[in-house]
Amino acid sequence: MHEGFTLWFTGLSGAGKSTLAQRIATHLRARDYKVEVLDGDEVRTNLSKGLGFSKEDRDTNIRRIGYVAKLLSRNGVVAITAAISPYREIRDEVRASIPNFVEVFVKCPLEELVRRDVKGLYKRALAGEIQGFTGVSDPYEEPLNPEVTVETDRETAEESTRKILRCLAAKGLIAETDLPPA
Amino acid sequence: MHEGFTLWFTGLSGAGKSTLAQRIATHLRARDYKVEVLDGDEVRTNLSKGLGFSKEDRDTNIRRIGYVAKLLSRNGVVAITAAISPYREIRDEVRASIPNFVEVFVKCPLEELVRRDVKGLYKRALAGEIQGFTGVSDPYEEPLNPEVTVETDRETAEESTRKILRCLAAKGLIAETDLPPA
Repeated sequence: MHEGFTLWFTGLSGAGKSTLAQRIATHLRARDYKVEVLDGDEVRTNLSKGLGFSKEDRDTNIRRIGYVAKLLSRNGVVAITAAISPYREIRDEVRASIPNFVEVFVKCPLEELVRRDVKGLYKRALAGEIQGFTGVSDPYEEPLNPEVTVETDRETAEESTRKILRCLAAKGLIAETDLPPA
Repeated sequence: MHEGFTLWFTGLSGAGKSTLAQRIATHLRARDYKVEVLDGDEVRTNLSKGLGFSKEDRDTNIRRIGYVAKLLSRNGVVAITAAISPYREIRDEVRASIPNFVEVFVKCPLEELVRRDVKGLYKRALAGEIQGFTGVSDPYEEPLNPEVTVETDRETAEESTRKILRCLAAKGLIAETDLPPA
């Protein structure tokens, strides 16, 4: 039986939060950890339908994700969240409510995100077709002291994944023997 | 490691859902089960602030509780819910989404609830001061085929608790050795 914890990804749309969340989940599930991924979109469907993207609604959405992550992780589950979570204050509020909280800042410069633009959202946001788009027309507050920072414009997904897993092992939240081979 | 399941209480306000939920939780925690109680009021604060008591809002509230109960119980946790959950269709929708779902109908005649009226709500509802109060001015649809029915006007809380635990043991969700002594 493993100890539960919350692995909280934060970063701009397209930075790689969901990709890394899924990679970590796959790695840990294969080693018999119980894992739930609370993805931004899935959570909006199941917990926050009707909420918009005002600061207040974003905060409410993040608090709900935090509540569910808390319930899961205090029962031995690895809760991995992958919502933009742009506001520092609410992330810190959630941090304060969860004993084993590990924040991962998925860092990627805006220019690179605009270049990738997998979903075509940045183009529309820059053209003014989407209002309140984080990083373009809505604020994103970088974490001041995250447990891990990954830079997805400079690292491969494999490198970032390894970095995160090493942090979890250093904190004693996963076993050293559960790290990927070097 | 125990198997997770969802114990879903349904019944009118004041019938005894929260009391029985807490008794079951206490009994199982003392026997090393992981247990979370999702009480109606707590959930409204953490997941459903802003929702009212229209049919649509009540349904949304119940779906959210169901989503969280599903996440917990598929990870080995006993999720106990204690919301009125007045509509059969939504309870059955939740049932369909959760593998180990046990519905407990907490049955108590309205006259008895009005007599008890611990929170003074029935008096106010009958006086027309509260609109849309389940059982008075809003519908309550009894379960057609719940796994357990407890009748809190005729049974002691201890008897009802035992009945529910026996049902869980009969389904193999708790061990026979975890039943209270006869």
